[in-house]
Amino acid sequence: MGLSIAMPQKMKTTVKVRNHHIDAYGHVNNARYLNYLEDARSDFFEELGVGLHLLAERGIHVVLTDVTASFRYPAKLGDLLDVYGWFIDISTRKATWGHEIRQAASGKTVMTGTATGVFLQRDRIITIPADVRQVMASLFLPDSV
Amino acid sequence: MGLSIAMPQKMKTTVKVRNHHIDAYGHVNNARYLNYLEDARSDFFEELGVGLHLLAERGIHVVLTDVTASFRYPAKLGDLLDVYGWFIDISTRKATWGHEIRQAASGKTVMTGTATGVFLQRDRIITIPADVRQVMASLFLPDSV
Amino acid sequence: MGLSIAMPQKMKTTVKVRNHHIDAYGHVNNARYLNYLEDARSDFFEELGVGLHLLAERGIHVVLTDVTASFRYPAKLGDLLDVYGWFIDISTRKATWGHEIRQAASGKTVMTGTATGVFLQRDRIITIPADVRQVMASLFLPDSV
Amino acid sequence: MGLSIAMPQKMKTTVKVRNHHIDAYGHVNNARYLNYLEDARSDFFEELGVGLHLLAERGIHVVLTDVTASFRYPAKLGDLLDVYGWFIDISTRKATWGHEIRQAASGKTVMTGTATGVFLQRDRIITIPADVRQVMASLFLPDSV
Repeated sequence: MGLSIAMPQKMKTTVKVRNHHIDAYGHVNNARYLNYLEDARSDFFEELGVGLHLLAERGIHVVLTDVTASFRYPAKLGDLLDVYGWFIDISTRKATWGHEIRQAASGKTVMTGTATGVFLQRDRIITIPADVRQVMASLFLPDSV
Repeated sequence: MGLSIAMPQKMKTTVKVRNHHIDAYGHVNNARYLNYLEDARSDFFEELGVGLHLLAERGIHVVLTDVTASFRYPAKLGDLLDVYGWFIDISTRKATWGHEIRQAASGKTVMTGTATGVFLQRDRIITIPADVRQVMASLFLPDSV
Repeated sequence: MGLSIAMPQKMKTTVKVRNHHIDAYGHVNNARYLNYLEDARSDFFEELGVGLHLLAERGIHVVLTDVTASFRYPAKLGDLLDVYGWFIDISTRKATWGHEIRQAASGKTVMTGTATGVFLQRDRIITIPADVRQVMASLFLPDSV
Repeated sequence: MGLSIAMPQKMKTTVKVRNHHIDAYGHVNNARYLNYLEDARSDFFEELGVGLHLLAERGIHVVLTDVTASFRYPAKLGDLLDVYGWFIDISTRKATWGHEIRQAASGKTVMTGTATGVFLQRDRIITIPADVRQVMASLFLPDSV
């Protein structure tokens, strides 16, 4: 009664494919997708109240260690892309995002990927801070790769 | 006697870290590494006589399907980076590059990765053309991940 | 009485400074501002009903011939920037945008600039199409450089 | 006799147009040219013995205040571009580069431009350091815009 248990869920943001995101093949360049994902993670952390600038004020930097990406369907100029992020793994000292990008108009999966990161303080990897871990748990969907 | 068997080997090119490759953390941005690798592969194909523009003239486009990257040591402004490429897998219709980027001055490994691609003609995946496969074989080092 | 004459006005869009927009000096890289302006112009044309993709369907491409930029105050990571555009010159075959970028929070002017463009059809410069000229007139503020 | 007076001259470096430099129009994106120019200036200063990293060690940062660019002929994928730089104006506290980019194969002028910069120390504009001014003089061609 009155107990509120929020189910973990994926977060979403939307990005527009710009002229300078396209490469000579006429599609979004592969490296650009990593920027879409990086921008999305930054927005997600901010929306969850643990923005990267707030962490930086505590001397904490989030650094990527590993990335994987599978390109399924080429995004084109003007496409609106829904960028999803959630956590597929959270351990003591590192965590892995699951990612998916869909063409907003069609729902087609453009790419899927993962991004693993660690938290650094004075250039040393630290245990994920408790408050950050707590908000990360709200995005923890380990079986939704 | 007179028999010449070239041993497969890794190819190498060098790139300089530019001001606009650096991000707010003071290091090379993660997405930028994918551009370093893409540029290197393009140069390697060209050096091997199967430049992407020559393939394009035959109506063939090389498209990435999968990428993995592990970031080991952050590259900084002005660093000269040695970008290595070779093949760790070559099958009928796709092939996977192995990659490594080292800081030229120190030899430190900056990142490792892989990039899997297919060849498209009229938007359909084709068998890797025989002449391309032949030059790819000269870079085939399956156990050197 | 009931007569409605819309006064020409500047258009505005907002962009967020991203991690990968920053360079080794810790500020937004100079080239990045041209992308902010390009994206803004694209959005402005679309909002006015003459989106670049609609022009492209008519075989018309808008190409930049000249750019000027003055950098006044450095934008930093996370800044929200208001990007303004209007026309300071419209002639038969070319037109010049006036631009200003302000830090949204403080109102400080980050940069000012201009961008002159022409309309190409079959690689030839054409008279600006009448419908495009009409909407451009709604942004014509020649004394507001 | 034995007197050696070096005539001021333009400096040159060469850049290759990469896949990710191209935009949806199939040409090098306008903003990218500013990166070509920035990279060239950085190389020129380094070659002249006053590399930006050496200035940074003295607490001096070179910051752009104004840029102009005229786009003449579109550069395409794979083009080798010769990027020229020299000084058209050197005053006490600021200096202006003249720039030209030519398609190496044809000699066609791709773009021309200028870039004005100042030297900052502790966030204040300073008189151009004497040693830097001396090497800049070797590139001073005021009538060669």
